Amino acid sequence: MGKFTDKYFRMNEEDALQYAKSQLEFFHGDAEITCKEIGDGNLNYVFKIEDKKSNKSLIIKQAGPVARISDEFKVSPDRNRIESEILELQYKLSEGLVPKVYKYDSIMNCFAMEDLSDYEIMRTALNEHKKFPKFADQITTFLVNTLLLTSDAVINHKEKKELVKDFINPELCEITEDLVYTEPFYDCSRNELLPETKKFAASNLWNDKKLLLETAKLKFEFMTKAQSLIHGDLHTGSIFVEPDSTKVFDAEFAFYGPAGYDIGNVIANLIFSYENAEATILDKKEKEDYKGWLETTIVDIIDLFSKKFKASWKENVTEKVANYDGFLEYYLGNILKDTSAVVGLELARRIIGLAHVRDIVSIKDIEKRIRAEKICLLSSKKFILDRENIKSGVNFIKVIKDVESKF
Amino acid sequence: MGKFTDKYFRMNEEDALQYAKSQLEFFHGDAEITCKEIGDGNLNYVFKIEDKKSNKSLIIKQAGPVARISDEFKVSPDRNRIESEILELQYKLSEGLVPKVYKYDSIMNCFAMEDLSDYEIMRTALNEHKKFPKFADQITTFLVNTLLLTSDAVINHKEKKELVKDFINPELCEITEDLVYTEPFYDCSRNELLPETKKFAASNLWNDKKLLLETAKLKFEFMTKAQSLIHGDLHTGSIFVEPDSTKVFDAEFAFYGPAGYDIGNVIANLIFSYENAEATILDKKEKEDYKGWLETTIVDIIDLFSKKFKASWKENVTEKVANYDGFLEYYLGNILKDTSAVVGLELARRIIGLAHVRDIVSIKDIEKRIRAEKICLLSSKKFILDRENIKSGVNFIKVIKDVESKF
Repeated sequence: MGKFTDKYFRMNEEDALQYAKSQLEFFHGDAEITCKEIGDGNLNYVFKIEDKKSNKSLIIKQAGPVARISDEFKVSPDRNRIESEILELQYKLSEGLVPKVYKYDSIMNCFAMEDLSDYEIMRTALNEHKKFPKFADQITTFLVNTLLLTSDAVINHKEKKELVKDFINPELCEITEDLVYTEPFYDCSRNELLPETKKFAASNLWNDKKLLLETAKLKFEFMTKAQSLIHGDLHTGSIFVEPDSTKVFDAEFAFYGPAGYDIGNVIANLIFSYENAEATILDKKEKEDYKGWLETTIVDIIDLFSKKFKASWKENVTEKVANYDGFLEYYLGNILKDTSAVVGLELARRIIGLAHVRDIVSIKDIEKRIRAEKICLLSSKKFILDRENIKSGVNFIKVIKDVESKF
Repeated sequence: MGKFTDKYFRMNEEDALQYAKSQLEFFHGDAEITCKEIGDGNLNYVFKIEDKKSNKSLIIKQAGPVARISDEFKVSPDRNRIESEILELQYKLSEGLVPKVYKYDSIMNCFAMEDLSDYEIMRTALNEHKKFPKFADQITTFLVNTLLLTSDAVINHKEKKELVKDFINPELCEITEDLVYTEPFYDCSRNELLPETKKFAASNLWNDKKLLLETAKLKFEFMTKAQSLIHGDLHTGSIFVEPDSTKVFDAEFAFYGPAGYDIGNVIANLIFSYENAEATILDKKEKEDYKGWLETTIVDIIDLFSKKFKASWKENVTEKVANYDGFLEYYLGNILKDTSAVVGLELARRIIGLAHVRDIVSIKDIEKRIRAEKICLLSSKKFILDRENIKSGVNFIKVIKDVESKF
């Protein structure tokens, strides 16, 4: 069976099925397995392999040789190693909130993991206006465990440096540096936006030198601040949900970066759902109810994160100087400040840049869509410029409500 | 000749001589070479190999299996690879200011380089009150070239990330984290200081919670801010001088860290020489003259650094967002702020911590030594606490003069 052990090739469904049979000790010999490609991401091929007989299933995720996102971004398949390693690490740090990895294969650039296809992609579920009452609690456990427990406050500094080295991720970071930190803030040919939104972006964002300066500072922090082993792409399309369960996946952007990046992505993407609800739910009471749940969720994520972070800090910190008076407040305050900035960056880049979100582009009423986009862009500015003062759940939601009230 | 190609062993003078003959294509076949160990550092063995016949010579520097600094610090010989690689890179960036490396040997953990034994160690020369009129100009060229040209402002971000990876330096960084950022700021058993200085440190530094908090912030920045490929140990014992020439060596602490770290080390160590002159030169005019030269040198280093940094920025920056209005001022301002902080940290740790400087401990008059130590400690505090406002050469020298005037 040299087929899978010699040299990488991109698998089709039949190959993936053979791979599961011959390379994984997961299915019984008499299993009747089937395989289906279910990927809808931009960078990878995802196969679901099922055995009807035993009802067992798993997922094989293979990195393509070139990123699907665009042929301009060439992305090395090493991201697959990074993703499987980060999943294993995150699984240790927050079991139950990350799929289990069964095997990583460095030749085929793929890994086999727990099948979560009974779960829904959170973005899709939110756009169907479903609620997930445990989400705030579960995602904040994930965030605190993965962000604090990989930082210099907790782990041995030499170990941490080895992790920094293992998770150096030049190509995926480049995508973020370009698409999040650069292109949304000028009239870049790769941007994709409605003409009216473009006019609005030009006069409110692209001409604002103070804002631009802040985005430059933030870009350099993203490139230089090796604070925590972050997921790096934690939008609601990277989260699987069931009514009572949350699983974070798609961690190929992982690297040591600013902790606030992950939290900010979660919040910004909930704001997109919030604006989706605003624009698409017609019944007033229903709209208020759903927006109210999202509001509570956003507030809870910020405040529960802070609360759990402080508790975990007290329990887990090993670095002597981190115990100095005032340091926890300084450190957490900085994470929240970075969170606010990233909310702003993500809000802008999903409206202006290359990669849009369904929450917004699926709004059929064009006037409502443009209103939603303007709300996101003006909020973006506030989240970036006022980040020093946006540090509690209430502060975060106030930005959105204030801006909404202007349109 | 398997002796040097199989397995690492620590060389004596005879081995190093054989090594030079058999492993390096440097000396002629009929050379009459001699070898002498001339190392006085803490981590390595340094051999000078000379051919009397041709007058050619070179240096072989071998990493010991355990750091000499103390048996508590175990330091892997990988630092030798780091040092030879950084020397080659620094040589490219600032030719003439760094010794040339002829060969790196990953088995013997040694490298052969340009012999600079005609040069003096700068610390020794300064303590003999020699002047080096070109030093400020030369060292600022070294600093700007190595610090700016390795940063995300200039080099390709993917290339930079590969350099970050290559220069991850866990063990040497640990030494700095402990000896510079932690131990000097509490009554650590490894500290070594005079009883009166200890009392002074206890009441002025160790009890100052505001100061401690700042040192904690700075320690985390040191551990997380991958800004520039820094030398990491740029005191006057790591600099060779001739009347007209400066060569930086001993770069085994190199890693991607805050750019201000290197500049701050240079300045702090000139301050030690300044206090050495204050305490040991008896003739008033001679003292004023020498201190005056040191003063000018300190002022020039800060101001020339800023000036050359701005010029090089304009010429070399490739990162789009770095050209936004106000970013250069922000970026350079932060480097100078970090510089001030590091001046403070270095001033404290060389007085309180494990590793002292000859400038101070060689002061025989104990009252004068204690005075010098107190001046360094009080200045240390100011450099750390007021770092936001210390950004020009004049600001830097004012701190010292103000503190001196109190004793």
